[in-house]
Amino acid sequence: MADYIEPLQALCEQFQRLSGIGRKTALRLAFSVLESSEEDAAAFAQAILNAKQQIHLCPVCQNLTDREICSICTDDRRDPATICVVEDPRAVLALEKVKEYHGRYHVLHGVISPINGVGPDQLKIKELLDRLSDERITEIIVATNPTVEGEATAMYLARLLSPFGIKVTRLAYGIPMGGELEFADEITLYRALEGRRTVE
Amino acid sequence: MADYIEPLQALCEQFQRLSGIGRKTALRLAFSVLESSEEDAAAFAQAILNAKQQIHLCPVCQNLTDREICSICTDDRRDPATICVVEDPRAVLALEKVKEYHGRYHVLHGVISPINGVGPDQLKIKELLDRLSDERITEIIVATNPTVEGEATAMYLARLLSPFGIKVTRLAYGIPMGGELEFADEITLYRALEGRRTVE
Repeated sequence: MADYIEPLQALCEQFQRLSGIGRKTALRLAFSVLESSEEDAAAFAQAILNAKQQIHLCPVCQNLTDREICSICTDDRRDPATICVVEDPRAVLALEKVKEYHGRYHVLHGVISPINGVGPDQLKIKELLDRLSDERITEIIVATNPTVEGEATAMYLARLLSPFGIKVTRLAYGIPMGGELEFADEITLYRALEGRRTVE
Repeated sequence: MADYIEPLQALCEQFQRLSGIGRKTALRLAFSVLESSEEDAAAFAQAILNAKQQIHLCPVCQNLTDREICSICTDDRRDPATICVVEDPRAVLALEKVKEYHGRYHVLHGVISPINGVGPDQLKIKELLDRLSDERITEIIVATNPTVEGEATAMYLARLLSPFGIKVTRLAYGIPMGGELEFADEITLYRALEGRRTVE
């Protein structure tokens, strides 16, 4: 890499800092920038600065927003009785795509992971508890990912929330639609069996 | 995508303009930027501007450079008798990695491709002919890619250069090292047969 000209090298290094970008992809992306017009490159640089400067956490649900309070928290049509707790803003985007969930969210910004030194205090759990003073809340759906850490975090939250007398639920886990039993792993199959439902 | 907050959406669109970046990867990269520090995001934006502002074409070989004339053209240790003609700056980087080529380069910035409306005039061919007044030049290696357009461009250049009495050569094509005959395509095998050499 030492043979690259310096500004190209510097740009490659910046691309490599992004998640999942290796040396070769960084070079391809850097050339893409060089091949674009001066205006396009300036617009790209400005978009980075704008995103970083304008996006912050919603003080209510901790999701990303460019408003004072995010558009979901301020939307009166969203059911205030249900809060879906997720690990990160990406999960909110995924759930919103379904268009079937009409409650609110709460973003933890991580999961409890002792091995990575992440305890409950590093997550937005205190902010979740603060919201429970709203008496309209009747159900909390814990939608952390079905990983070891996600499950542990769900268990922790369920225990923490039990004194509040609020229903705590978890998403259903099982065979993904379109998937085949043959290719499902044992844990997914176990969960699918365990969560079996009467055909109506 | 309409549900993203605007600055995130704008940043995703910028990433999607880059070569080979789709919607999902753009979103991942945009989140990467949001997760970085304000200083890192500013450094990224600055690197884009710097690369675009400081990098231009070397007036001699048409390769990318941030100097007046590029470091290869000004390097006295590089053999001025040989010019290797390539399609783009990436090819220069690839050849330089081998560390076995000690001549100079000439970057065409494309290949002749009637279907894409690219004729010889859109390439840096005139600039190549201008260099031939240097009497030290004895060989031109045409190292365009072994594609239909690359081959056509090589043929065109060979014809164009023949009146100058300079040796015009082409890279050897054949089975890649570590490759197996079984998996080589017919054209590669044909080239490998055609280019066979006496074992010494």
